[in-house]
Amino acid sequence: MKNPAVMLTDAALADLRAAFGPRLSVGHAVRDAHAQSESLVSGPPPEAVVFPETTAEVAELARLSDRHGFALVGWGAGTSLEGHALAVLGGVTVDFARMDRVLEVRPEDMVAVVQPGITRERLNEELRATGLFFPVDPGANASLGGIAATRASGTAAVRYGTMRGNVLGLEVVLAGGEVIRTGTAAPKSSAGYDLTALMVGSEGTLGLITELTLRLHGQPEAVSAAACAFPAMVAAVDCVIATIQTGLPMARIEFLDAATVAAVNAFSGLSLPPAPQLLVEFHGSPEGVAEQAARFGEIAEGFGATGFQWAKAPEDRKRLWAARHAAYRAILASRPGSRAIVTDACVPISALAAAVEETAADIAASGLPGPILGHVGDGNFHAILMVRDGDAGEAATAKALAHRMAERALRLGGTITGEHGIGLGKRGLMAAEHGAGGWAAMGRIKAALDPKGLMNPGKLVP
Amino acid sequence: MKNPAVMLTDAALADLRAAFGPRLSVGHAVRDAHAQSESLVSGPPPEAVVFPETTAEVAELARLSDRHGFALVGWGAGTSLEGHALAVLGGVTVDFARMDRVLEVRPEDMVAVVQPGITRERLNEELRATGLFFPVDPGANASLGGIAATRASGTAAVRYGTMRGNVLGLEVVLAGGEVIRTGTAAPKSSAGYDLTALMVGSEGTLGLITELTLRLHGQPEAVSAAACAFPAMVAAVDCVIATIQTGLPMARIEFLDAATVAAVNAFSGLSLPPAPQLLVEFHGSPEGVAEQAARFGEIAEGFGATGFQWAKAPEDRKRLWAARHAAYRAILASRPGSRAIVTDACVPISALAAAVEETAADIAASGLPGPILGHVGDGNFHAILMVRDGDAGEAATAKALAHRMAERALRLGGTITGEHGIGLGKRGLMAAEHGAGGWAAMGRIKAALDPKGLMNPGKLVP
Repeated sequence: MKNPAVMLTDAALADLRAAFGPRLSVGHAVRDAHAQSESLVSGPPPEAVVFPETTAEVAELARLSDRHGFALVGWGAGTSLEGHALAVLGGVTVDFARMDRVLEVRPEDMVAVVQPGITRERLNEELRATGLFFPVDPGANASLGGIAATRASGTAAVRYGTMRGNVLGLEVVLAGGEVIRTGTAAPKSSAGYDLTALMVGSEGTLGLITELTLRLHGQPEAVSAAACAFPAMVAAVDCVIATIQTGLPMARIEFLDAATVAAVNAFSGLSLPPAPQLLVEFHGSPEGVAEQAARFGEIAEGFGATGFQWAKAPEDRKRLWAARHAAYRAILASRPGSRAIVTDACVPISALAAAVEETAADIAASGLPGPILGHVGDGNFHAILMVRDGDAGEAATAKALAHRMAERALRLGGTITGEHGIGLGKRGLMAAEHGAGGWAAMGRIKAALDPKGLMNPGKLVP
Repeated sequence: MKNPAVMLTDAALADLRAAFGPRLSVGHAVRDAHAQSESLVSGPPPEAVVFPETTAEVAELARLSDRHGFALVGWGAGTSLEGHALAVLGGVTVDFARMDRVLEVRPEDMVAVVQPGITRERLNEELRATGLFFPVDPGANASLGGIAATRASGTAAVRYGTMRGNVLGLEVVLAGGEVIRTGTAAPKSSAGYDLTALMVGSEGTLGLITELTLRLHGQPEAVSAAACAFPAMVAAVDCVIATIQTGLPMARIEFLDAATVAAVNAFSGLSLPPAPQLLVEFHGSPEGVAEQAARFGEIAEGFGATGFQWAKAPEDRKRLWAARHAAYRAILASRPGSRAIVTDACVPISALAAAVEETAADIAASGLPGPILGHVGDGNFHAILMVRDGDAGEAATAKALAHRMAERALRLGGTITGEHGIGLGKRGLMAAEHGAGGWAAMGRIKAALDPKGLMNPGKLVP
């Protein structure tokens, strides 16, 4: 699968060694660590891994890439589920682990400027004293550069938006080594093409992000979270739809099916009723949160919700969300020796019940374990399709299920990926989602900004 | 200034006449009506105006444009302030007046699909019975296609976001006539380059928008609006900054300086105290709105606010916001025989007081009347620089002031345009905002999607 046209030559390696010394790694252990993802997806190891420390070094890498013709593939925390950061055609992985600082926090503007390698948990630790936080929370402790590159979102997007709305500006090293800055720290702009939005979600194919200006939000004065059980999956989903339509400003609304709840209970020591659950959270003033929680309770009871567990104390809430965030690991632990394909359908809210029901029936018919959970406030849900390591039959079954889920999302007016991105698994569905013309337009943009095809080649575009 | 390379030939005109019959207009009256904007900016008339009725007709126009090499320039409601829709190099204006329908409303998904020629007021009239509304409100009764093309925003952006966040998908006719669809009706997606965001704000230079899928919002259960006066402009701006930093969820927060208040009082029959004013609005539940209004009142009093006029009854609110929306006309009416240059600076909130103060001093020193007002919750404000018709000296003074305002916004970390776009007046400042490399990247994208340069040529890119 590797392509000699974008692989490292001896001359290129010599130049890289001269430029990066011990921060260039060609040993097997380091290279193999960059051949994995958090899901079943893996790839060949890159020929080398470089750990730059400055934007100037990333620009130098891009100049060397241009001169010698080797590929550059960015790497953040390695938490991708679709293999975006795998150097499948060969070349050099650019690991941003050493570019992981908060460069500036401007509380009065609710803005932080960070390097791409910082993880979201560390960013929020560093922000804690300011009374502000960064809300995009994809579950995994991903790097901010990676979250931007995949246009990820997660549990709080229903209130605070996805990465698309929370990046004000970027510094990007383009193919060839030019450094550009997109956006400003002003809250909005109408000055030409929105290059920030173009780069967010481009999966490293248009350039390498070396700095991000992020929109921060005030830590809510009061927070209230709850879990409640429903008699059936469809009742929970219908409750979500009704809640959204009343305009209740939820900060999070997450669905777990009964299998997910069982796995979470076992893994995290919770005692949620073994039934489909919604976990919700409200942010606001003490009065506002109390009112919203009461209204949600009324709506949910109308759909048969029982067993409300309110978590008002910070430690109870923390425990609840820690368990939700550990759901992926909990599900993997429920079937030792398995890895997973994590699907990522997103549909218009009106189609959510149909999408979830059809998916559950399809999974049940396949015989594969596939708990379902998701950010249902966004019409976004995942099935964790478990596959025994090395079992080619199960892998094929899971891949076929995932493919049908993506097709189903399209049929229902949705998208093949709500937040995980395209990576290796879904490039074959891009034309189905965007039409041949729309996908070709992406290819023309790619060719315009990366004419030699050295930025994460083999991904995303035709 | 016209460029023969993109002008209509006799052969092209014959083909257009055959295709569009009476919906092709070459008469002076119609052409001259498409040579204006709502501000001082004007241009030469296009050589012809076409009124398409379907996407297929727009695609046919793009094919003819490609074959004969004439320019296409989109036209909505003609409310642009920067002359984006002027065919400065020649060619054909595409007037979307006959593509002005709501194609679909899906209340359960809070989505509407519309044609580009519909105006925002008519859209909201058609939505009224659904309990939903479209919140992007640039003041003028602009067309949705034009609002998207300029990435406009307006009074409610502080709560509901700009056009960037409220367009879920587009149908676009590219140069050459290919029709693409971007986005879906799902609330989010990570499937490749965000072509929707790239098209929003592209000012017609990448294609012609023929359909928009819009995000709707629930009409708030309760609304409360107020005006209050401040002892000085800086006190009002500082009050805005403090209010934002407390996280109070305002739906609108607008600043009017004393000159604007005087003009509005005279024009709309209000009796606001002749001092700098903030107009605010809160959306939510009755309890939430009451609480927010009370908290805002406390904050504002800390900055010396007096003379609160609460408008709880719908008719009082309507009157207040109608007056705000008429401010531009009110200011023009205060000096008969003048037209205006409307500036559009947007800065980080922390720089807002400095930006407004320096601007006011600069205008005062110039001797030109230039009332200041703005969407201060976004750091965005305008000066209405009045110029006597035909007075070249005043025009030069106003242009120099506007240029210094844009430069000042950049110096303070902001943008040369918060919501009006680039059009004719600000192209010379694009490199200053984006750097030569960033602006060149826009040019490469333009060349990739419109290699012959026929979509609104002469605008936006190098």
